[in-house]
Amino acid sequence: MPVEPMPMPVASLKDEASFTAAEIDRFFSNLLAKPGDSRDPLYEAMCHAAIDGGKRMRPLLVRAAGRLFDVPEERLLRAGAAIEAIHVYSLIHDDLPCMDDDDLRRGKPTLHKAYDEAIAVLAGDSLHDLAFVVLADEATHPEPQVRVDLIAELAKAAGPVGMAGGQVMDLEAEKMGELGIEDITRLQQLKTGALIEYCVEAACILARKDADARTPYRGYARNVGLAFQIADDLLDVGGDEEKAGKRLHKDEDAGKATFVSLLGEERAREQANILVEQAIEHLHDHGEEADLMRAIARYAVERDR
Amino acid sequence: MPVEPMPMPVASLKDEASFTAAEIDRFFSNLLAKPGDSRDPLYEAMCHAAIDGGKRMRPLLVRAAGRLFDVPEERLLRAGAAIEAIHVYSLIHDDLPCMDDDDLRRGKPTLHKAYDEAIAVLAGDSLHDLAFVVLADEATHPEPQVRVDLIAELAKAAGPVGMAGGQVMDLEAEKMGELGIEDITRLQQLKTGALIEYCVEAACILARKDADARTPYRGYARNVGLAFQIADDLLDVGGDEEKAGKRLHKDEDAGKATFVSLLGEERAREQANILVEQAIEHLHDHGEEADLMRAIARYAVERDR
Repeated sequence: MPVEPMPMPVASLKDEASFTAAEIDRFFSNLLAKPGDSRDPLYEAMCHAAIDGGKRMRPLLVRAAGRLFDVPEERLLRAGAAIEAIHVYSLIHDDLPCMDDDDLRRGKPTLHKAYDEAIAVLAGDSLHDLAFVVLADEATHPEPQVRVDLIAELAKAAGPVGMAGGQVMDLEAEKMGELGIEDITRLQQLKTGALIEYCVEAACILARKDADARTPYRGYARNVGLAFQIADDLLDVGGDEEKAGKRLHKDEDAGKATFVSLLGEERAREQANILVEQAIEHLHDHGEEADLMRAIARYAVERDR
Repeated sequence: MPVEPMPMPVASLKDEASFTAAEIDRFFSNLLAKPGDSRDPLYEAMCHAAIDGGKRMRPLLVRAAGRLFDVPEERLLRAGAAIEAIHVYSLIHDDLPCMDDDDLRRGKPTLHKAYDEAIAVLAGDSLHDLAFVVLADEATHPEPQVRVDLIAELAKAAGPVGMAGGQVMDLEAEKMGELGIEDITRLQQLKTGALIEYCVEAACILARKDADARTPYRGYARNVGLAFQIADDLLDVGGDEEKAGKRLHKDEDAGKATFVSLLGEERAREQANILVEQAIEHLHDHGEEADLMRAIARYAVERDR
């Protein structure tokens, strides 16, 4: 269902987010149709985790960045869904008893609570594969080189040089203690930043932008990723569990170093705001077609969940 | 290090297997070089699971099939390493306490025993990503379309319509009981068959064979996959734990239906031998360049581990 790109006023961030969430739900509903055999519980579990949940900030960011280059909506949606599949798989595995041991996610029981741990491991693994199935399909882009680039960069952003590597750094940090601000920045750039940066990278790949042309958008994404993480740390300290739909005060309780524990709330908030301004500055060559990108950057720190 | 393909006598199966195992170890050693930061335990864990272990039957099968079509060795090795990365990740997750809860694998402590469960989950996830990183690299094949095809088929073979789906069928079977021979066949075609079939499919994709030309090789792989699984069931009942390097009698202890529990040992062995003969029959258009394929088919049922 291609929708023509057009410049959006800032006021419509909420509408754009709702539209994106509905499109992602529709995409996953089709992708995860039950096969009608004994694998049905696997598909039900994937739906529990992937449908009707989350802010869908990553797919929204893909759409916002793709709008700068007039990339067709259907391609942006597919890339966004692949990223969201990776994000959801990582949350499922993160919530397992051997990892963060969480009972609540997006206001619902975590997957190993709603089903069992074995299904949770396999539903995560399955969504992990489906991300690549989605990107490899020619509906994502007619040029195989574009699809290979999307796949290679996503596998890097998700794997040991990206998200999974950052998660291990985080586990090790709990053992070592005493991280500095540079360590935390590096850790978060891998753990959450790599996949957020990939959202903008994916739009650039779909638009066939070369490495030089991607530089400002990478800068934007890096700043937004860090600002988003600082906001997450602030919400962990001062947020509302009801709104967040998950357990808070986790870092505090675990005695973990975060941007907030190192800088204090006020300086952390200042730092997040500076990062947002820097992110927006990277978009100075663009007019109102970048307003959604600007609104997302502001939302990253202003959100209450 | 490309090696020219040449016809091999059956006697050299052992040499070919040793050569393949050494090449796969070398490949993983390079791929998994430690980054020298707090992610080192992740890389050590991946090496523990991926290096110096297993029969490497899947990469050997890729090399054997590729030899029929003169595919360069380096490309076959890369495809074989990607498949082995998926196989190893599935073993790591399979061994977890919430799944099969095994302490021993390939004669070594399982990964969650040697490290911990969190690292085991993340090492599996990381190897899962690296399989796609390896395939997406142009060293695997200069044509992007070939790499996309390799990636799409591997993600299907590993995901909910393949291996992961078969694992869930297996979990559900324990709850439902009373599977028939057709149910077991379908379950095993997904759980272990899909990845074994992909080994031969990958060689066909690298050789740019069209769907029609792939038919006999698919038939070979399907027969070998089932014969391999029946042999596994026979080893679970009558094998030597020392040689196997893992716990046996698992299916028996769990009261699970297998080819052996349904057919009895003698008929199961007969059935495996018939499948091997059928597999070899699919190669009738080939001369001695297919001798390694034939030797692998026989080995699938004659092995003692």
